[in-house]
Amino acid sequence: MSFDLDSSKRKKVWNSTIESLENFYENTGDLKTSSAIERGHVQRNVIDDFDSPKVPEEAIEHVIECLKEFAVHTPHPDYFGLFNPRANFPSIVADTITATFNPQMAAWSHAPFASEVEDMLIHEIGKKFGYADKETDGVFTSGGAEANLTAVLCAINFKFPSVAQRGVAAIGATPKIYCSTESHHTVIKSARICGLGTESITYVPVDEKQEMVPESLESKIKEDIANGHEPFLIFATLGTTGSGGIDPIRALSRLAAKYGCWLHADAAWGGAVALTKEHRHLIEGIELADSITFDAHKWLSVPMAASLFITRHSDILRKTFSIETDYMPADEDEIKMIGSYSHSIQWSRRFIGLKLYLSLLVFGWEGYDETISHQLKLGEKLKENLLLNGWKVLNNTSLPVVCFSDERFEDEPDFANFIANRLVASGNAWVSTYPIDGKATIRACITNYASTEQNTNNLVELVNLQRETYIKAH
Amino acid sequence: MSFDLDSSKRKKVWNSTIESLENFYENTGDLKTSSAIERGHVQRNVIDDFDSPKVPEEAIEHVIECLKEFAVHTPHPDYFGLFNPRANFPSIVADTITATFNPQMAAWSHAPFASEVEDMLIHEIGKKFGYADKETDGVFTSGGAEANLTAVLCAINFKFPSVAQRGVAAIGATPKIYCSTESHHTVIKSARICGLGTESITYVPVDEKQEMVPESLESKIKEDIANGHEPFLIFATLGTTGSGGIDPIRALSRLAAKYGCWLHADAAWGGAVALTKEHRHLIEGIELADSITFDAHKWLSVPMAASLFITRHSDILRKTFSIETDYMPADEDEIKMIGSYSHSIQWSRRFIGLKLYLSLLVFGWEGYDETISHQLKLGEKLKENLLLNGWKVLNNTSLPVVCFSDERFEDEPDFANFIANRLVASGNAWVSTYPIDGKATIRACITNYASTEQNTNNLVELVNLQRETYIKAH
Repeated sequence: MSFDLDSSKRKKVWNSTIESLENFYENTGDLKTSSAIERGHVQRNVIDDFDSPKVPEEAIEHVIECLKEFAVHTPHPDYFGLFNPRANFPSIVADTITATFNPQMAAWSHAPFASEVEDMLIHEIGKKFGYADKETDGVFTSGGAEANLTAVLCAINFKFPSVAQRGVAAIGATPKIYCSTESHHTVIKSARICGLGTESITYVPVDEKQEMVPESLESKIKEDIANGHEPFLIFATLGTTGSGGIDPIRALSRLAAKYGCWLHADAAWGGAVALTKEHRHLIEGIELADSITFDAHKWLSVPMAASLFITRHSDILRKTFSIETDYMPADEDEIKMIGSYSHSIQWSRRFIGLKLYLSLLVFGWEGYDETISHQLKLGEKLKENLLLNGWKVLNNTSLPVVCFSDERFEDEPDFANFIANRLVASGNAWVSTYPIDGKATIRACITNYASTEQNTNNLVELVNLQRETYIKAH
Repeated sequence: MSFDLDSSKRKKVWNSTIESLENFYENTGDLKTSSAIERGHVQRNVIDDFDSPKVPEEAIEHVIECLKEFAVHTPHPDYFGLFNPRANFPSIVADTITATFNPQMAAWSHAPFASEVEDMLIHEIGKKFGYADKETDGVFTSGGAEANLTAVLCAINFKFPSVAQRGVAAIGATPKIYCSTESHHTVIKSARICGLGTESITYVPVDEKQEMVPESLESKIKEDIANGHEPFLIFATLGTTGSGGIDPIRALSRLAAKYGCWLHADAAWGGAVALTKEHRHLIEGIELADSITFDAHKWLSVPMAASLFITRHSDILRKTFSIETDYMPADEDEIKMIGSYSHSIQWSRRFIGLKLYLSLLVFGWEGYDETISHQLKLGEKLKENLLLNGWKVLNNTSLPVVCFSDERFEDEPDFANFIANRLVASGNAWVSTYPIDGKATIRACITNYASTEQNTNNLVELVNLQRETYIKAH
């Protein structure tokens, strides 16, 4: 059996596949955002019998139909969800190219072009954040979780160089991480994975903007030091997942310097404003961070997953991850570390930078500036429209995520869930819920470049209707 | 600016892209396996100016041409390299589908079909390894490094449940990992990432087959215990990267039980023989391992990266990674854990299982059995042909990796490098070098389903020629 099929057969399969995919891509908005899904029903549609091979067209059609039927459609313009984008067209093509060439990113010498593209992107995006080109280093990761884990590892190896050999137990004191109560839960995962344990995390309260309070941070640090602990990492969030809070990075940077801590900026989502002229100021000061997490698969609209870990300490990744081996191709010394296994949690690595490269080639910085700025404006308009319709916005951010409720019912714990669940069940739009200051809110995030004011206006009408239903039912 | 382009424009771009990719795919064998590459030259071909957007066709053509020119062509039938496969056709299509639908695997409810497909694959591959369906759990990872890291984390959380909260320092004693001197260096990375430090690793010698010696393992364990250390993980390799050694898993399993250790089988590459009727016996006993790493992006010929971590402890992943959050969709309790962020180092996750699913639908178990068996036979034939031509094979494995030298020159440290470097520089085939028992060897691995006896015969002729040159030059 040849795994290749013959060339004319492959072209036929490509044609029918592209037609089906294009049909979905062109008409995503005509589908329900999601449909009611019963687990057994999904399972009955999964084929687990691989004894009789299928014609490729049939197999592919089966997959496409099931993905259409059994999924929340994150590429849908009425999906106001969790930072899962509609993938832009060049980035989809990029994933096809990557799959065909299958470059091996573990060593520079195996994939020189791919490695240099990723290295260039790390530096160019680093510049957008205000990093000096010469100091910059970084690596593409499988997602924000791996990028944040990389940050914790760099921070601990920076402050305690002996851990690589002797482990965290040899530090003696408890190394302490500071993050706000609104930070992403990958901090917890990272602390557990790194062998620090969740007790190493000190949570810092947030203000009414859901942003870390520097005074509280300093008193927590002092308290920990008094208890014999070792502060080593301030983990700032620039665009929290829940409500778009932006931690005050300048103030945190002063405290990081004062107490000898690494400052990490988790800008997985919010960092994208660095690509706009008008809104870059929202994250001003991010250049003071020792490292940054940024997810291209969020606001830059490329398929999952494509995260960047960027640092202004050009030698820390190598110090954290480098291991000599016999079976890796011996690259020239000066190029040895670039994009290679000695810089990353991963070993073999997919060429995930290509989707960002191809998107930038086709749309340019300008295209991203326009799109991101448009989405920011759309968020403002959604907010205004909600207020006009008697809703109350409980979060306070310039980023396009709106957490809202109705003042009359905001203390009724079921209200937000009632609205969100019924809306999701209808398949007419997708929103989630999120608690702000103990109150459940409905959370709508503009996460799709194809969403228009029409879509956000529809959303307001839909939540208005559900509110009517709620009022009648109670 | 619309990120979508219009439909007819996209179809045109797809057509030209597929034509270029098909041209590479159909004629990979006509290219050089790699070409001489000077870093500056590559860098000059990388575009870093994103101020003037490009026509998509031009951008795509640029990328394809550069990937053709500046890369080791792992899909080439004369690439006898590092387990980087030629991606099979359905798996390339799968990556295109995944990019278009962009399913979010963090939560079951966002991607029910995708989650159920991955869950089914974990169980079906688990069965091939001999795991009982009901006990099986697992997760797709970004690569073998993440899968092995997951194994170390599961092992430590299994033996020391308090580490999640209190960290590894609270264990008191030094937790000890046992692996052979031939195991993959991800063990070192994992030990460092997990906060154990490299001192937690105890290396066990190998025998002449490059396989871990159980008697040595037991004496190392006893010695560590006598020194107050805490053995917790035996890390077995079933198919070492360098020379295809297969650790004696049954004997290791007895020692794991005796000393209360988790037994992990790193079968990233070698595990594929479980899909054959004739060769499954090579890894018999793997069902005794507590967990298994298996890379579909190696011998199952799908694009990087697609690894599986599989365990027969159905609750350990949840215990190791589960974190409750407010912003994740609240799935039904019984489906909460499936393929979700609570099972994985990652959070947002790409639908990487699709490439394996589509490959299995099209080729069936039978297709994989045929292909893998064919490659095993090709390895044997290569070995025979090398022996016939006066070469000496220094490794002893049934897996298709051959480490060879010439008895007359095997003590000359430059001989193997001379052959390999010149061969690689010629672009006529790609091989690496690997030291066996202190002697440098040339390492050739059958890693491409499209390689034929013709390709391996050519390889022998090519190394014969280089040997002649070496003899003349010395």
